[in-house]
Amino acid sequence: MNPLQLFDTESSTFTYLLFIPGQTAAVIIDPVARHWERDLQQLDRLGLSLTYVLETHAHADHVTSAGKLCQITGAKSGAPTGCGIGPADLQLNDGDRIVFAPGEELYVIHTPGHTAGSMSYLWRDNVFTGDALLIDGCGRTDFQSGSADALYTSITTKLFTLSEDTKVWPAHDYKGRSVSTIGWEKTHNARLAGCNRTDFIALMKNLHLPKPRLLDIAVPANENLGLSHDA
Amino acid sequence: MNPLQLFDTESSTFTYLLFIPGQTAAVIIDPVARHWERDLQQLDRLGLSLTYVLETHAHADHVTSAGKLCQITGAKSGAPTGCGIGPADLQLNDGDRIVFAPGEELYVIHTPGHTAGSMSYLWRDNVFTGDALLIDGCGRTDFQSGSADALYTSITTKLFTLSEDTKVWPAHDYKGRSVSTIGWEKTHNARLAGCNRTDFIALMKNLHLPKPRLLDIAVPANENLGLSHDA
Repeated sequence: MNPLQLFDTESSTFTYLLFIPGQTAAVIIDPVARHWERDLQQLDRLGLSLTYVLETHAHADHVTSAGKLCQITGAKSGAPTGCGIGPADLQLNDGDRIVFAPGEELYVIHTPGHTAGSMSYLWRDNVFTGDALLIDGCGRTDFQSGSADALYTSITTKLFTLSEDTKVWPAHDYKGRSVSTIGWEKTHNARLAGCNRTDFIALMKNLHLPKPRLLDIAVPANENLGLSHDA
Repeated sequence: MNPLQLFDTESSTFTYLLFIPGQTAAVIIDPVARHWERDLQQLDRLGLSLTYVLETHAHADHVTSAGKLCQITGAKSGAPTGCGIGPADLQLNDGDRIVFAPGEELYVIHTPGHTAGSMSYLWRDNVFTGDALLIDGCGRTDFQSGSADALYTSITTKLFTLSEDTKVWPAHDYKGRSVSTIGWEKTHNARLAGCNRTDFIALMKNLHLPKPRLLDIAVPANENLGLSHDA
């Protein structure tokens, strides 16, 4: 069962819509503010009812529409404990399960490193990895409570131990790619395949990436689910 | 079961990759020339083996990579009879079935109107409608053997008679939308909902659209599956 993958061309962010044919319940992961109407229209066209809106972390490169989507639809918001997203209905912890339709569970996997609170979500044979594991890469670890050491542990002990057939759906891609598998990333990922912890930490330390343009705006906004503090 | 939907930003074309978790067989519908490497990489990352590459029609707005993908992977090409795509391995007719994996069948539905040969493909609860039925619209009918009369018949008697839950995956969208359902289109489609044949023909006649920029290049190229005539 594949999710529907939606793309924001401004921030190269993927939003995911999870649903099962013949059932109305749907989950959205990592929605983007400027696409809230598109996402509501998707739900309408597919005859779906939104049950949960989940964040993988407090994003630094775009603003979420989670708060707005939940206000309009009545869905519950969920975000990782420790990401500072105080208003989320569910403060999620490693090992939590979210039942969004009969027999349909999302498993919450704490995968810190890009941020201290970052979560991945496992649904059937799909894992939504946020900015932890990307296709042939990984999220940066040089700001917002990032830790290369923690990210190495998360990827090698929590994500690479999933079934090799598990599809990897990241929060971003900048090269037109859309999906990978755990098996492919274990053997090919440019930053992790055949790379020990010491090498990985050194590699991440030497990336010297520029500060994200929206960091000072996006993080505080996302800590309030994208809602204005007046709302 | 959703297909993987890939997008070409130049021509706003959707390419679809169909596969079933745990099986290796895959089908690609309407691939775009400049993305042939991306599409091969997708197959590699997912551990998939391409069995068929199908065209919904001879496109006028982009060039296909069907020939190239088939040469490299050994997959069979399939195209509608009557679209002038002579080199295709399978010349498809209304009612044909393509078995691409055990128990997995694509049903070929002749839906003329955008072009005389245009086909739609039904797989499980998904229909790939090419340029016949679009989200909240339909393909143009003013060139390349188009016929508004034929398109009205195709959509109202062949597509709108599918189950209302059937997901509609078009060949294009120009407004960031990705998928719809037969039920939604029957009741909301701006050109077809509540519109009789006479009104529809008059509406399509009065669109006065500009000639597609690539028409004279793309159609001959696509009639040869995107392969150079020297190849």
